[in-house]
Amino acid sequence: MAGSAIKPTPLLKDELDIVIPTIRNLDFLEMWRPFFEQYHLIIVQDGDPSKTIKVPDGFDYELYNRNDINRILGPKASCISFKDSACRCFGYMVSKKKYIYTIDDDCFVAKNPSGEQINALEQHIKNLLSPSTPYFFNTLYDPYREGADFVRGYPFSLREGATTAVSHGLWLNIPDYDAPTQLVKPLERNKRYVDAVLTVPKGTLFPMCGMNLAFNRELIGPAMYFGLMGDGQPIGRYDDMWAGWCMKVICDHMGWGVKTGLPYIWHSKASNPFVNLKKEYRGIYWQEDLIPFFQAAVLPKECVTVQQCYIELAKQVKEKLGKVDPYFIKLADAMVTWIEAWDELNSSEEKSSKQPNGTAK
Amino acid sequence: MAGSAIKPTPLLKDELDIVIPTIRNLDFLEMWRPFFEQYHLIIVQDGDPSKTIKVPDGFDYELYNRNDINRILGPKASCISFKDSACRCFGYMVSKKKYIYTIDDDCFVAKNPSGEQINALEQHIKNLLSPSTPYFFNTLYDPYREGADFVRGYPFSLREGATTAVSHGLWLNIPDYDAPTQLVKPLERNKRYVDAVLTVPKGTLFPMCGMNLAFNRELIGPAMYFGLMGDGQPIGRYDDMWAGWCMKVICDHMGWGVKTGLPYIWHSKASNPFVNLKKEYRGIYWQEDLIPFFQAAVLPKECVTVQQCYIELAKQVKEKLGKVDPYFIKLADAMVTWIEAWDELNSSEEKSSKQPNGTAK
Repeated sequence: MAGSAIKPTPLLKDELDIVIPTIRNLDFLEMWRPFFEQYHLIIVQDGDPSKTIKVPDGFDYELYNRNDINRILGPKASCISFKDSACRCFGYMVSKKKYIYTIDDDCFVAKNPSGEQINALEQHIKNLLSPSTPYFFNTLYDPYREGADFVRGYPFSLREGATTAVSHGLWLNIPDYDAPTQLVKPLERNKRYVDAVLTVPKGTLFPMCGMNLAFNRELIGPAMYFGLMGDGQPIGRYDDMWAGWCMKVICDHMGWGVKTGLPYIWHSKASNPFVNLKKEYRGIYWQEDLIPFFQAAVLPKECVTVQQCYIELAKQVKEKLGKVDPYFIKLADAMVTWIEAWDELNSSEEKSSKQPNGTAK
Repeated sequence: MAGSAIKPTPLLKDELDIVIPTIRNLDFLEMWRPFFEQYHLIIVQDGDPSKTIKVPDGFDYELYNRNDINRILGPKASCISFKDSACRCFGYMVSKKKYIYTIDDDCFVAKNPSGEQINALEQHIKNLLSPSTPYFFNTLYDPYREGADFVRGYPFSLREGATTAVSHGLWLNIPDYDAPTQLVKPLERNKRYVDAVLTVPKGTLFPMCGMNLAFNRELIGPAMYFGLMGDGQPIGRYDDMWAGWCMKVICDHMGWGVKTGLPYIWHSKASNPFVNLKKEYRGIYWQEDLIPFFQAAVLPKECVTVQQCYIELAKQVKEKLGKVDPYFIKLADAMVTWIEAWDELNSSEEKSSKQPNGTAK
């Protein structure tokens, strides 16, 4: 690739992996080429492992299908969902980089109001590398942004901010609606470009969507488990929500910040609302118990690592949500398995055990 | 005014007062004429009561100077600040309307990115008349806005929202910075139009600025006391902050929402940072104690009216902040006086006791 010699090195080039869960050829990467080409991709192939996923030329990637996941994790592979984009979290586990950006294969490059293509990854990196403000709301939004600052009345002792763990990006065109809302408003499109990044305050939960999401894997990676969804499970489409609620409770406990807002991607196609309804309907009533559970969850001071926090949260899930449905007992066990698998793959000796079946470029 | 016969009646025309604290002629109203002309204005004249404030023709207003305040409140007038825009809260007290919009006389009509003049008042009214979402963050911001909704993962039981008590608007051009930030960044201007309205989550404090602020007086009016500032007091420029922190704790207790974001006004002139520093410097270090105090403040269940909440908060201020400085003991007493005065003026029998010295049109 002689041309790449003259390209400027993008931010965090060797410290960030892009994780893409997919069941199809990755033609969508063509549009992302100027922004992703110099980064390493981790592709998690969902569904039939005998199928070959085509990746456009020139991308540096490793690809894992279900056979790889089973081989690498052995019996612990049970914690990784099948036939659901929740499988993406396997990519977080096998990455060895400090940062992760994950994107869906129906997401394209959006344009800002001036008509310029948005480098979503660059904005996520800016979000992750600048502090958050979880303890007090700044009315001019991100105070670290060019042209902004903390407003009058913002305590000076809080202006150093908190370390940012997660950057949650948004979507133009098809909004991330649940099945009932999709059914009621089939034609609604998100056309509003809100030029803001803000910190979700401490103690506040939000619906984290996995379509356009970046995080500091070294900090919060072990909490980014996308749960048991899809094949053999009673729900789907709550993978990212589950991760978001667990992650937020843990970030609040650890003193880390979570941002949402810019960057936008262009979300091209709405999933089928009838299929979605079938996947979601249990989640829709379970979440009425989940939200109060997470709002009330307190982690003891003794939990000083994300793994400890996550194991403690799994215990509370089993105790308190097990009564809602036996599914949560299974999920709590999977949360523990996830941490065991994470620690196994991320101990320094175990790096050689993973053998991706594809590397290109 | 024959021309007004063909003008459409604006929203809440007879249910909203516009409160303006001032020390100068109100030429700034010319620019607001198309938006304010059909509303009633309450002008609170600060400083020398012998000075005559000119109000442009065609506005319907009542004007109160210091002599009026002293006459109407008698000894209780001590709770109303002098030589500080904190005096504006007297206007909230004498209003008999359900809603208040308050604006500074150095604030002009801003333009949106399409170059259209922004009807700030209309946006505030929309904010106040639609619910808030204090219990869970919606990543597409105000879900009640045209073209938006609740996103996937937002609990359905929370979609009815909470009653909105306060709408906090923002400022283009001169941002609302404290003196140290003004000194460090004298040339910074706010050029970013963020097209969003959002609810400040329950449990989160923010710096409420009084320049461009609307609220439901019937709900939260008694908590909108702007404190003791200016003449004879050790601080200034914390009037709106104080009101904002008290108000937020009470709204959280009562289950009401507070919004911030749109609308923008054009803030034309920065106040003198050296003068501001003198007014602010005690506040800058006191607020390091104030914020933890308000973050930890809990109101007992027995407090079921705003007045009860406010009296309880005054008690806690005296007990806990009295140690920070004797000023807070005086302020706590003034908070009680304010409620007494509020109740006196707002009991049904006492309406005739106020005699504004000016009514025009």
